[in-house]
Amino acid sequence: MNEQSRWLSPVEQHAWRSVMRMYERLEGRLSRGLQSESCLSGSDYAVLVNLTEAPGGRMRHVDLARCLEWEKSRMSHQASRMAKRGLVARQGCPEGGRGAFVVITPEGREMIAKAAPRHVDEVRRLFIEPLTPDELQTFARVADRVVERLEKEQC
Amino acid sequence: MNEQSRWLSPVEQHAWRSVMRMYERLEGRLSRGLQSESCLSGSDYAVLVNLTEAPGGRMRHVDLARCLEWEKSRMSHQASRMAKRGLVARQGCPEGGRGAFVVITPEGREMIAKAAPRHVDEVRRLFIEPLTPDELQTFARVADRVVERLEKEQC
Repeated sequence: MNEQSRWLSPVEQHAWRSVMRMYERLEGRLSRGLQSESCLSGSDYAVLVNLTEAPGGRMRHVDLARCLEWEKSRMSHQASRMAKRGLVARQGCPEGGRGAFVVITPEGREMIAKAAPRHVDEVRRLFIEPLTPDELQTFARVADRVVERLEKEQC
Repeated sequence: MNEQSRWLSPVEQHAWRSVMRMYERLEGRLSRGLQSESCLSGSDYAVLVNLTEAPGGRMRHVDLARCLEWEKSRMSHQASRMAKRGLVARQGCPEGGRGAFVVITPEGREMIAKAAPRHVDEVRRLFIEPLTPDELQTFARVADRVVERLEKEQC
């Protein structure tokens, strides 16, 4: 490969930087909104959303980590912090060998029920509404393709 | 607003989650690549790229922070850490009142020159190549529109 062929064209570089900037800005804004309105971090919110969608509000530790695409240690620290604040509880697994569970508490349900409408309103206003339906579908399709390629490479 | 109208439709939710997942995966992969090949974090890389693009390899602290969209304190910690490792140097401003400069060192230039080709190859392989030229343009246009809306709201 010669030296020149390595670099991105102006159009490619613009696309790459724009997409990264969009994410960082959105993520920053949404996190600040959650924190100031609900005292939840983005990570707290993600854990609570996943648990409310699971039967009985509980998931195995490893499955939750997989859903969130987090390392085991990050999942473990996050669950400990949330358990201390009463948002989730940890349950052992009586059958053994299949790992502990994380379960949402009534306090956790109350917190997410309070936080979600405003958070979803923000997502809608900042990300959904500025896009046409076609653009939204293109975004989803392309993002899935990129993730698929990443996953294929990891196998 | 009634309760139902708050939630995202399945198509909207899919688009939102896909885009967030794409970013997190890409960001994770690229950071790990930089770290293992070059001992640079994503933040180190971003600082060095901005400085190499500036005349004389130097920028005012405040301008660099603005380019990177970082808080002043984050910029300050990052510059200190990089100065300790010899990647950048900090220079006072003799005229006074216009803030200190951050300048890339020869060691910093060497590091970025080594890291960039592989990093750009990864960006190309993982993000540019899976997209058609039309999709790439849609991505850039839409991302710019979302950022514009975020900025308008902040004013």
